[in-house]
Amino acid sequence: MLHILREHIEKIISLTDDEFSFISSHFEIKNYRKHDFLITLGHDVKYCYFVTKGLLKLVYDDEGGKQHIVAFAMEDWWESDFLAYYSKSKATMSLQCLEDTQVLCLPLESYHALCTSLPKMEHFLLQKANAGHISAQQRILSFLTSSASQRYNQLLKKYPALFQRVPKTQLASYLGVSRETLSRLSE
Amino acid sequence: MLHILREHIEKIISLTDDEFSFISSHFEIKNYRKHDFLITLGHDVKYCYFVTKGLLKLVYDDEGGKQHIVAFAMEDWWESDFLAYYSKSKATMSLQCLEDTQVLCLPLESYHALCTSLPKMEHFLLQKANAGHISAQQRILSFLTSSASQRYNQLLKKYPALFQRVPKTQLASYLGVSRETLSRLSE
Repeated sequence: MLHILREHIEKIISLTDDEFSFISSHFEIKNYRKHDFLITLGHDVKYCYFVTKGLLKLVYDDEGGKQHIVAFAMEDWWESDFLAYYSKSKATMSLQCLEDTQVLCLPLESYHALCTSLPKMEHFLLQKANAGHISAQQRILSFLTSSASQRYNQLLKKYPALFQRVPKTQLASYLGVSRETLSRLSE
Repeated sequence: MLHILREHIEKIISLTDDEFSFISSHFEIKNYRKHDFLITLGHDVKYCYFVTKGLLKLVYDDEGGKQHIVAFAMEDWWESDFLAYYSKSKATMSLQCLEDTQVLCLPLESYHALCTSLPKMEHFLLQKANAGHISAQQRILSFLTSSASQRYNQLLKKYPALFQRVPKTQLASYLGVSRETLSRLSE
């Protein structure tokens, strides 16, 4: 599955075989089963994850015990509790498998080492960080301006695969609507 | 006001005088009056802005003509319509002064030039991009999990200065509540 990472990185920067060997040596490959946790609330967040196969949900549990899905992550996506990862604080969210999942795990020390030793990798990571920032800004906009029905249609248009793979209760939690509202929208 | 930029950057990386001269030569200094537009809907987004004095609002106008405030930016903050800036597409939001404002403007070509010529500047920009991503992720979380009353209190705690400087109608638009709801919250 390392070739998936290489293709992903080479969409932005080109790499020699030696450079890619150096990069991939910083990642750990891990396999998880459906329902397994990659990040557990209140624990250390050791890795940023690149998904090569499978599907994850990033979840926040509120004080009333209600679960809110902050993000989904499937093939070719990066995910973590980024605040806890970069600041070495404890996880305020959890990251759990919705399917059997394979990830490439990047420890924070390796993230920094890659940036220092290979400037073009820092360039790649800057592009990804900017893309993540833009995508989050667009989602804020959708909360401010769109009805549940519009958010549903935006998601359907942008990530049709999610509707095949994610249970409806989970989609409802991501969209910030009740399961009943979602059923009405998807009729 | 260049010293404000230097202090801001040196919170993350240290710079020699020559390096800072090189960096600052890439910025243009501009002054705007209250109500002026830095970014106009549908136009090119030439710059990313660093605020040295004043206050800006990043605004999205929905199809019904209703105005939604996506972000405020005051001293020491970076702001732009980042999607349009990085992708060289037309602005989908506008950026307007709530006070007389002074900004340092970074054209996209200069952003790239700084990254290429000065790796530690790319490192600085990566830290800022990650911080922007994290902050946006936290705001998404607040929309998913918090009531209007909680969002109001979070904002008051995080940025008390905003409550002195921003009219209540604008705060309501940022929080995604009506002016009447905000009045009830702030009583």
